[in-house]
Amino acid sequence: MDTPRPLILITNDDSIEAKGLHCLIEAVSGLGDVIVVAPDDPQSGQSSSLSVNRPLRITEHPDYHGARVFSVSGTPVDCVKLGLHAVVPRKPSLLLSGINHGSNSGNAITYSGTMGAAIEGCTVGVPSVGFSLLHHSLKADFSMGLPFVRSIVEKVLASGLPHGVCLNVNIPAKVVPEGIKVCRAARGHWSEEYRRYLDPNGKPFYWLTGRFCNDEPDAVDTDEYWLSHNYISVVPATPDQTDFGAMPGVARLLGLGS
Amino acid sequence: MDTPRPLILITNDDSIEAKGLHCLIEAVSGLGDVIVVAPDDPQSGQSSSLSVNRPLRITEHPDYHGARVFSVSGTPVDCVKLGLHAVVPRKPSLLLSGINHGSNSGNAITYSGTMGAAIEGCTVGVPSVGFSLLHHSLKADFSMGLPFVRSIVEKVLASGLPHGVCLNVNIPAKVVPEGIKVCRAARGHWSEEYRRYLDPNGKPFYWLTGRFCNDEPDAVDTDEYWLSHNYISVVPATPDQTDFGAMPGVARLLGLGS
Repeated sequence: MDTPRPLILITNDDSIEAKGLHCLIEAVSGLGDVIVVAPDDPQSGQSSSLSVNRPLRITEHPDYHGARVFSVSGTPVDCVKLGLHAVVPRKPSLLLSGINHGSNSGNAITYSGTMGAAIEGCTVGVPSVGFSLLHHSLKADFSMGLPFVRSIVEKVLASGLPHGVCLNVNIPAKVVPEGIKVCRAARGHWSEEYRRYLDPNGKPFYWLTGRFCNDEPDAVDTDEYWLSHNYISVVPATPDQTDFGAMPGVARLLGLGS
Repeated sequence: MDTPRPLILITNDDSIEAKGLHCLIEAVSGLGDVIVVAPDDPQSGQSSSLSVNRPLRITEHPDYHGARVFSVSGTPVDCVKLGLHAVVPRKPSLLLSGINHGSNSGNAITYSGTMGAAIEGCTVGVPSVGFSLLHHSLKADFSMGLPFVRSIVEKVLASGLPHGVCLNVNIPAKVVPEGIKVCRAARGHWSEEYRRYLDPNGKPFYWLTGRFCNDEPDAVDTDEYWLSHNYISVVPATPDQTDFGAMPGVARLLGLGS
């Protein structure tokens, strides 16, 4: 019996219609059998949320560039879970998420639906990579990063990833990247987070806005630093949020000894 | 001028109506000025999701047990962000989330709206603790855990928490807890994740179900282990998902040297 070709599951958070999804499918063309399971509708900022109290539908769409294409009426994590449960014929060799229209560097990973999907893949033991371009436009030009995307996918397909680790890959916009750097997520915060409006009845409502402020602009080991120098950043990310180093100190402050 | 009393911001993911929220407010009575900013509607499984493309409303409700009470038409993270932006008069000394109706032990933290709120508080520098009871019922009995909840809150109020660390506290149900253990999150997976139905037109839809399977039942340093022995588990959790230890290996597999 022939060894089956690698199966690559692709999802995103910008929906089945997004240009970034189509570019990712094209970028990995020929590297394996590709199945897409992506959200019906845009799901930015959905983090690792899942649909606990409503039904989910799966819709099949025409093939794209040799890939079978499905959409799910839910979040990126719903797409991964339900895709693995009800769509793929065998366990994928790889899960790819993106390419997101917009940055997921720094602590944006916390809110990112793109990375929520990658973290879900990692949790169930599938080597998983999320890709994001630092440009929000629906018409953003992904082309200059695509050879790097393909190269990263080839290497992860060949070598796998360490257990419990997925990759958060961010790609600078509007330039040919200088190269790739493995780095940590920069710490930062958002400022001017909401705009306040008055509705026609004079009652206030709020709309999320704000911008990311890098709290450590001089740290040369961060994704923000290398992105600002036109490199692709690769942050190894773990789903396990336990802070092992903090355990003795927390035990002491709770009066439990160390 | 008098030093202001500690300000405690309370939120949850089960909504402003949840018994667990009311129990948490009662448990911390007298420890500071309490302001509640909780979701209008249940938000289980919302993780760190936020509302990026829709307006948010704030509604004020009658005081409860001395606390001022507001609700927000969004997710737990929306409540924390907008609460800090538009509701609180000063930076809180503490953010508390819960008490959740249901476990957030093991890798449930990934999907937890309760912990999404605590992680948000931690990210903006407020000592933050999420509490969950291992019982889903709307009428669950929280009383046996409440003295422990108050004790943990008193100690965190007195000592703060290490920078970049929040606490994921899970409480066994239907017993007086034996004590408190600081531990790591058990690794596990969900099985039988979806139930498949046919609608009246014969078209399938899916509903999330499944149960958590502990992949390391013999590991004595995990939350699952101690909860099964009727202890309260406290997992120090970090918003920073960078896997520092994996960086050299990932660099090598991408052909970048170490």
